[in-house]
Amino acid sequence: MTNPTAAILVIGDEILSGRTRDSNMHHLAQELTRIGITLREARVVADVHADIVAAVRALSATHTHVFTSGGIGPTHDDITADAVADAMGATITHRADAMALLQAHYDRAGLPFNEARQRMARIPEGATLIDNPVSTAPGFTLGNVHVMAGVPNIFQAMVASVLPKLTGGAPLLSQSLRVNRGEGEIAGPFGALAAEYPDLSMGSYPFVQNGAHGTNLVIRGTDPALLDAAMIRLTRLFG
Amino acid sequence: MTNPTAAILVIGDEILSGRTRDSNMHHLAQELTRIGITLREARVVADVHADIVAAVRALSATHTHVFTSGGIGPTHDDITADAVADAMGATITHRADAMALLQAHYDRAGLPFNEARQRMARIPEGATLIDNPVSTAPGFTLGNVHVMAGVPNIFQAMVASVLPKLTGGAPLLSQSLRVNRGEGEIAGPFGALAAEYPDLSMGSYPFVQNGAHGTNLVIRGTDPALLDAAMIRLTRLFG
Repeated sequence: MTNPTAAILVIGDEILSGRTRDSNMHHLAQELTRIGITLREARVVADVHADIVAAVRALSATHTHVFTSGGIGPTHDDITADAVADAMGATITHRADAMALLQAHYDRAGLPFNEARQRMARIPEGATLIDNPVSTAPGFTLGNVHVMAGVPNIFQAMVASVLPKLTGGAPLLSQSLRVNRGEGEIAGPFGALAAEYPDLSMGSYPFVQNGAHGTNLVIRGTDPALLDAAMIRLTRLFG
Repeated sequence: MTNPTAAILVIGDEILSGRTRDSNMHHLAQELTRIGITLREARVVADVHADIVAAVRALSATHTHVFTSGGIGPTHDDITADAVADAMGATITHRADAMALLQAHYDRAGLPFNEARQRMARIPEGATLIDNPVSTAPGFTLGNVHVMAGVPNIFQAMVASVLPKLTGGAPLLSQSLRVNRGEGEIAGPFGALAAEYPDLSMGSYPFVQNGAHGTNLVIRGTDPALLDAAMIRLTRLFG
């Protein structure tokens, strides 16, 4: 029984130019791990139509779910909705349901529902809207692609409304042991232990503290009993 | 005159599981922007041989440079060097120059140069070593692929030793204006201005502070005079 897989596609020149540090990938990784969907790949592409289309097509074909972040606002550089529609062969319009949501929102705020703001109602035919409790402008799910905002608190709110609708697998559990020895010292027996447990994933993450080398050893897997058994062996080796 | 392009490939289960938040992508983005190499794409893949091979092949074929981060340590999950060799059709051995570097390092430290540590001397034939002033174990450049450690301070030291050897283009400059208006209010005239300057990239990044909407408007480009001219127009519009 294999868990469903996912990819995240972060869209935005501001990440690739180093102006902004992405945080959505890390948030989604943690949330997916919790519900047993394996994040298998992440990509960041620029605000370029062809690049977004190519990435959506490639990821949509190879993963159970694709989550996108960024490029669904009101400005000229917000081109994600049109690119996703294009990638998935869907038509896109200023859809009536999204127009109504946004019209009501701007009426309440006493702000004009101008052409730029109407751009946020561009939703592909056949897509399901994703609720945006922060600022109303919706994301959408089209096929296996979930299109969400890049602003972190809105992204997180959309993730919280999408994930409960998805079928996960066994949550990926992890346990770790911190040892005060360098990686090169523990690598032999640690690798041998990993080979004994092909259904678990074992990783080692070195650190230096006060000039001394140490390593965090992490075991990940979906079977709690197997994880416990391997941790007992690990602790016996290095604890 | 177009700047050379680059991609970064971050390798590691710990990023995709959400255990660790990657910082190497952001560091490299900033450094490349400074020297006029355009970071066009970033990917994160798991510690899976086939995934690394496929990503290296795809990125190496489409960009001037590929930078990898992670998976070159002494443990069983460090499989990057072998995967890169495979992707580029090179043979890989415990290379004599790397063995000598590491042997001297462990002799000085009074530590055994055991089989696990010798693993870090696996370097493809034809590759050039990348200096590691932090912990000796070298990275390498094979063709247009620069293979570096994942530990952030070592990654940064390797970037510092590789980048001066590369031919950059015109540095990507940016200027920004912070306005106390929401994106939907400025999007129309901002988009019209962007259309007048096809050689510049203009982006808008909304924020909320004390409940009020604001937007950072950023103009990027390689021609300082053009950038100045556009900023004057932008300030006149929204300043």
